[in-house]
Amino acid sequence: MRWVLPDHIQDALPGEAEKLEALRRGLLDAFRAHGYQLVAPPLLEYLDSLTTGAGQDLKLRTFTLVDQLTGRTMGVRADTTPQVARIDAHLLNRSGVARLCYCGSVLHTLPSTLTATREPLQLGAELYGHAGLEADIEVIRLLAEALRLAQVPASRIDIGHVGLFHALAARAGMVPEREEELFALLQAKDVPTLREFLAGVAEPVRGALLALTELYGDATVLDEAARRLPDEPEIRAALDDLRALAAALGDLPLSFDLGDLRGYHYHSGVVFAAYGEGSPAALALGGRYDRVGQAFGRGRPATGFSLDLRELAMRLPDGVPAGAILAPAGDDAALAATVAALRAAGEIVMTALPGHEGTWKEAGCDRQLVRRDGRWAVEALQGE
Amino acid sequence: MRWVLPDHIQDALPGEAEKLEALRRGLLDAFRAHGYQLVAPPLLEYLDSLTTGAGQDLKLRTFTLVDQLTGRTMGVRADTTPQVARIDAHLLNRSGVARLCYCGSVLHTLPSTLTATREPLQLGAELYGHAGLEADIEVIRLLAEALRLAQVPASRIDIGHVGLFHALAARAGMVPEREEELFALLQAKDVPTLREFLAGVAEPVRGALLALTELYGDATVLDEAARRLPDEPEIRAALDDLRALAAALGDLPLSFDLGDLRGYHYHSGVVFAAYGEGSPAALALGGRYDRVGQAFGRGRPATGFSLDLRELAMRLPDGVPAGAILAPAGDDAALAATVAALRAAGEIVMTALPGHEGTWKEAGCDRQLVRRDGRWAVEALQGE
Repeated sequence: MRWVLPDHIQDALPGEAEKLEALRRGLLDAFRAHGYQLVAPPLLEYLDSLTTGAGQDLKLRTFTLVDQLTGRTMGVRADTTPQVARIDAHLLNRSGVARLCYCGSVLHTLPSTLTATREPLQLGAELYGHAGLEADIEVIRLLAEALRLAQVPASRIDIGHVGLFHALAARAGMVPEREEELFALLQAKDVPTLREFLAGVAEPVRGALLALTELYGDATVLDEAARRLPDEPEIRAALDDLRALAAALGDLPLSFDLGDLRGYHYHSGVVFAAYGEGSPAALALGGRYDRVGQAFGRGRPATGFSLDLRELAMRLPDGVPAGAILAPAGDDAALAATVAALRAAGEIVMTALPGHEGTWKEAGCDRQLVRRDGRWAVEALQGE
Repeated sequence: MRWVLPDHIQDALPGEAEKLEALRRGLLDAFRAHGYQLVAPPLLEYLDSLTTGAGQDLKLRTFTLVDQLTGRTMGVRADTTPQVARIDAHLLNRSGVARLCYCGSVLHTLPSTLTATREPLQLGAELYGHAGLEADIEVIRLLAEALRLAQVPASRIDIGHVGLFHALAARAGMVPEREEELFALLQAKDVPTLREFLAGVAEPVRGALLALTELYGDATVLDEAARRLPDEPEIRAALDDLRALAAALGDLPLSFDLGDLRGYHYHSGVVFAAYGEGSPAALALGGRYDRVGQAFGRGRPATGFSLDLRELAMRLPDGVPAGAILAPAGDDAALAATVAALRAAGEIVMTALPGHEGTWKEAGCDRQLVRRDGRWAVEALQGE
């Protein structure tokens, strides 16, 4: 059974590969039109640069390999975002704003859900160098536009703010290991274990951390949060950010989820997740990650999003395959010119190979080139 | 130094990434026009299916990983061709011809030369199901067309035939391990060691194997080969194939190299390597590999080629970057309509973010949208 693939790993056969390529081109072209420049970081890096600034979750998802040239441990990227942050921090050296985008495979040691792939085709856009909410607004609008182009308009965009968690965790005075555990419990929305975990934490922080799991819904949740969370600068600032987003993006199907810590540990401010009609899992994840650049020695504000093109391609209806034209073999110059002209006009022209009569329909041909009165004409495929 | 990449691994920054994307699209579109359908096999497979039918060389180049789901050994593909053969053999199940193409990264444990990358961006086209020379002629022509589109027209296409080696090795009666060693010596054109190695082999086979290393040049080499190699059916058939290619492809810069065993061990018949002006290394390699499908339980004739897009992109002159238009932020409906129209017309329009005055030229802007007499107009970028 040498042709069996590992679980959660799959080929893209012609129909799906064509959809992936069309989505890739359409979305990268849209990003380009908005000023996002394409970059292509490598599949392999030293493990510490791939997972720097990120949490345990990304490390566990990263396949590791030994570099035969140096003996050092390398990883196959499980997420492209930290790589793009490295490029912004060290290679572009812009003093102003940098808008970057990318599209490429990432690998995960284990699938994130029962049906997830271990090789997402990650496509994303990132905006560096601007700390203001204008950047978050731009990338959320770009995400909505990308989903619209992919024919899966966002039915809901959940917005959260990791600053609320960080403010409360800091007030609880936890060591980093405990804070990471708390983060994982909130991420999993595991309220019973969270209650136990918080038993020793004093009010009002304990109640506020539990409240985070209940604060979701429309923009009125922000007023409720102002009442239920401690009134302190970092929390006020986060809620003000969320109110400003609600006002600026009123035409999008926004919803707020203040306990949402999805995505990787490196997020630091506004975070968001977009859903499509009938999709229980998020189609795209994004947010602020101002601290990743720091790990590379040059802290720059950063916000962006990424999505899995395979997920989008699955939802895209199958196109009607473009029928091909069968051309006879031969040295005829007029035939060669006709074939070249048809191809230049976007037609698929396959050359017949001897001995395969009766199989050209299977190969995708629906028409053929036939010589009539000394000229080559396209006619319906006969005799198949 | 967390931002330092492993040796022979590199980022593609905006200029290069744009060239790679343009080449990718141009070549895949040309393949499509010739009837080659796109497939995208995975980066990861079980090791035995990735390296099946291939020699030791491919195995040594393949990074291995443990599948946490099953404990089995997986590999990251070092070559896409065997994967596409698997798709033809088991997933498409065509009774006639299948034309397939692909484009994606592969990884090598060690670079093949001092300057080679360990992450080529492999692009290729494969033709399955036709054993006749028409298929080899078609793929060699397609390769020449691909290089022409990439602005590196082939300055020389070396053609060889692995059948000559196999016929001679069979007559020498070697066990598979010895044959693999002999293959490696010929591949390396290591004549002194080859002489030693062949000391115990009887004439005329010994002399014929040594002659292979000298038989290169224009089509007259084929006549010389007929004189110097044993006159037996497999050798006559191989030389007849090469003569037929010389006749059919007379307009291409063909050259013959009968000791050429480049590429991977799986090749079984006609093999070829294309060079560009001033490139000592081959830009593309290809040939017949009729036996790979057998390993997947369904032997199908197969021929094709692959090349590294990074290599081609390096040779492509830098384009003049498309200048972007800076648009002011704001809710103005006329502005939004103007921006959308410019983007739809292929322009890059970046939205200004507050506080970054003086940096927009660095970001790539050369024009800006300005309101004049109540209308939005594109003008040269001022005040930068």
